[in-house]
Amino acid sequence: MTTITLIGTGRLSFNLMNEILEIESLQLNQIYGRSMFRPKHISDDIDYIKDIDNLKHSDFYFICVSDDQILNVSKKLNVNDRVVVHLSGSTEMSILLHHQNFGVFYPLQTFSYESELSFKEIPILIEANNKKTLAKINTLAKLFSRKVRKMNSKKRLICHLSATIANNFSNHMIVTAEKILENNKIDKKLIRPLVFETIKKLQKMNAVDAQTGPAVRNDLLTIKKHMKQLNESEFLNLYKEITKSIMSNEL
Amino acid sequence: MTTITLIGTGRLSFNLMNEILEIESLQLNQIYGRSMFRPKHISDDIDYIKDIDNLKHSDFYFICVSDDQILNVSKKLNVNDRVVVHLSGSTEMSILLHHQNFGVFYPLQTFSYESELSFKEIPILIEANNKKTLAKINTLAKLFSRKVRKMNSKKRLICHLSATIANNFSNHMIVTAEKILENNKIDKKLIRPLVFETIKKLQKMNAVDAQTGPAVRNDLLTIKKHMKQLNESEFLNLYKEITKSIMSNEL
Repeated sequence: MTTITLIGTGRLSFNLMNEILEIESLQLNQIYGRSMFRPKHISDDIDYIKDIDNLKHSDFYFICVSDDQILNVSKKLNVNDRVVVHLSGSTEMSILLHHQNFGVFYPLQTFSYESELSFKEIPILIEANNKKTLAKINTLAKLFSRKVRKMNSKKRLICHLSATIANNFSNHMIVTAEKILENNKIDKKLIRPLVFETIKKLQKMNAVDAQTGPAVRNDLLTIKKHMKQLNESEFLNLYKEITKSIMSNEL
Repeated sequence: MTTITLIGTGRLSFNLMNEILEIESLQLNQIYGRSMFRPKHISDDIDYIKDIDNLKHSDFYFICVSDDQILNVSKKLNVNDRVVVHLSGSTEMSILLHHQNFGVFYPLQTFSYESELSFKEIPILIEANNKKTLAKINTLAKLFSRKVRKMNSKKRLICHLSATIANNFSNHMIVTAEKILENNKIDKKLIRPLVFETIKKLQKMNAVDAQTGPAVRNDLLTIKKHMKQLNESEFLNLYKEITKSIMSNEL
């Protein structure tokens, strides 16, 4: 039986908790959090602790806190030769180098309390400070996912950047589209089927081949109508720049 | 039996053809196209014509050509009192005013040859130059969709603008994210599960509530790392502008 302790109680920790509880060969020893009371989404069956000195021995300690707290929390952990990992896409592995055996376990996904996820298809990017630890993290990660990849901190940051653009930026476009509808007293749900179809197409073709619309077909007349509509909106400049970027198709 | 003629042979026409063939009370009289030979995706069972003077009588003529060809094609149609509609989101209804009975039938969706769509959930925005024609278009549109809405040309353009942002712009973000991975020799499919989850979340919450990532949490350290990574890329400026837009959350 492999034992794990989760440090942190956010969305990622919540999703890991649910997954660990479903994997028979894993045991979730403890969850550590800062809040006095057990956060409501943490299962009652789990030993929730708020004093980091009360940590039990585990094979793995997962630091699932915000990036700017990783160093701080990590320094408080006394775990001898057991494995400490952080789960951040944009943080160097070396932030953990005061430990003996350490690494990274980065699931390339967006996590929420609302959506139920299976980790099986989530890429997990792993890294470690020595071969033995890498082998251990690899074996563990494969219990979660079919898509485990070894990747160094520099490449992981590139994945995190791409993920930010693909997820946050595209979501922001949908936020903006919905706001334009709301501002004009049009039901914002009207574009929902379009949004779902946009992504469904990506199951059959590359995003670059799926592109449609005025920019990619160089339809200046429609672009002009859109710009006139946006008029003095804050989004006008972004409309122009993104349209230009689609037209140039360069990076 | 209501009869329809489709003018044009693009993606929208192809999707309408498939839908009309499945609706029992509709008959697809003819499809008109410019190309000498029948386009390969047009069913053999349909009367394909390339001479616009050979049009049969139909109850409805659907002008499914590119926006800049609507006027041109429409002027060639001699249809007396039968109904002519265009299907463009960004074109005024009045472009058809040389006809007696005319209107708009705009399905708010992205169409392709590859993806199979049901029209049932697609919003269809309709407009007409008189009540009787509006009633006819409304009855027809309801055979296609549960979501038929009357909307004037000005509001329809706002929907089209929103659709462009929600579909083309968000797709461009995914194109860009994939390119960054490719440029760095990382498998671009790694972000696919993330992209699908991004949209899946929107079935449970509003886009604005689904937003995560460095910009929305004001994580300047990560933003700086991303910008350093983008360095001299064409996308650096857009990265900054979109990040600013997410932070300000204004329109």
